[in-house]
Amino acid sequence: MSRDRYHHGALREALLDAAETALERDGPGEVTLRSVARAVDVSHAAPAHHFGDLAGLMSELAAVGFRRFAGALSEGAAAAGSGPRDRLDALGRAYVGFARAHPALFRLMFSGDRLDRERPALRDAARAAFALLRDTVEAGGAAGDGEARAVAAWSTVHGFALLMLDGRLPRGRTADELLDAVLAR
Amino acid sequence: MSRDRYHHGALREALLDAAETALERDGPGEVTLRSVARAVDVSHAAPAHHFGDLAGLMSELAAVGFRRFAGALSEGAAAAGSGPRDRLDALGRAYVGFARAHPALFRLMFSGDRLDRERPALRDAARAAFALLRDTVEAGGAAGDGEARAVAAWSTVHGFALLMLDGRLPRGRTADELLDAVLAR
Repeated sequence: MSRDRYHHGALREALLDAAETALERDGPGEVTLRSVARAVDVSHAAPAHHFGDLAGLMSELAAVGFRRFAGALSEGAAAAGSGPRDRLDALGRAYVGFARAHPALFRLMFSGDRLDRERPALRDAARAAFALLRDTVEAGGAAGDGEARAVAAWSTVHGFALLMLDGRLPRGRTADELLDAVLAR
Repeated sequence: MSRDRYHHGALREALLDAAETALERDGPGEVTLRSVARAVDVSHAAPAHHFGDLAGLMSELAAVGFRRFAGALSEGAAAAGSGPRDRLDALGRAYVGFARAHPALFRLMFSGDRLDRERPALRDAARAAFALLRDTVEAGGAAGDGEARAVAAWSTVHGFALLMLDGRLPRGRTADELLDAVLAR
């Protein structure tokens, strides 16, 4: 069978890749165990075997997303100057840049209804990304209510990213120019 | 037929009410023309007649949401003290309060893939809500880059509302306490 073409683990990766491609191209409503199996040319028992059900597949894909997101955030922060304020701005740009590069994946990662949020891979990957974000934000400010500062910064970049993806931002400036102006406040 | 039970316009309202109830109770994946017709005890030709297809129904429901949202925002701002800063905080609380009171409707209003965003009722209702938001924010700040200030304030409350609905906020304080701390910055 076609399945023999895949080494251990490689079929799982191929199925996740196919799901991500379909998600970004066609939207979340079009991703099914069956469509993903078809894209990889295996029986639809294969995704069921690896992920259980559609929520399982989507949750594992969201976990991939959170790991990639954490990587993008730490790269962004590391590439910035050493000042905590520079690192914070760079983190904000990396956050919004990730959402722009992977819009459907980003939405999926934060969607309430398509994921099994208690799935360990997803829970751990999401926690790691948020911890990174929180640590950078808390390190990046003056004394005072560090948690409120972290939540405010996170809310701002999260809201900005979603309003951008929704096409709700004012049109006069590019999203990058607007983000710089927002971060400069 | 059952349809005779409804006066002009009343069936349309009943269908939208049923769709909203199902949306909040069961999630967006469970709302169909057929389920809404069944809830109102009419043939499934009735929602098709009023809304065309499921995206049409969802878009009209989102339009209802944006009108209610605009109402909640202006009530919130009007009830606040007369200072622009008070009005801005009240607007932020009303924004997040609306999201908490109608979580599935709020998500639907900002969902990319379930709506026909060019449907006039939805487009107009969304524009009116955003205009109200922008005017209040722009009136509420000092001189300088009013647009960036408006986008930053909007991003912050929007992101906060979604992180709250997603259960991503830190657990030590209530969402209201955290929001007050965020708005106080």
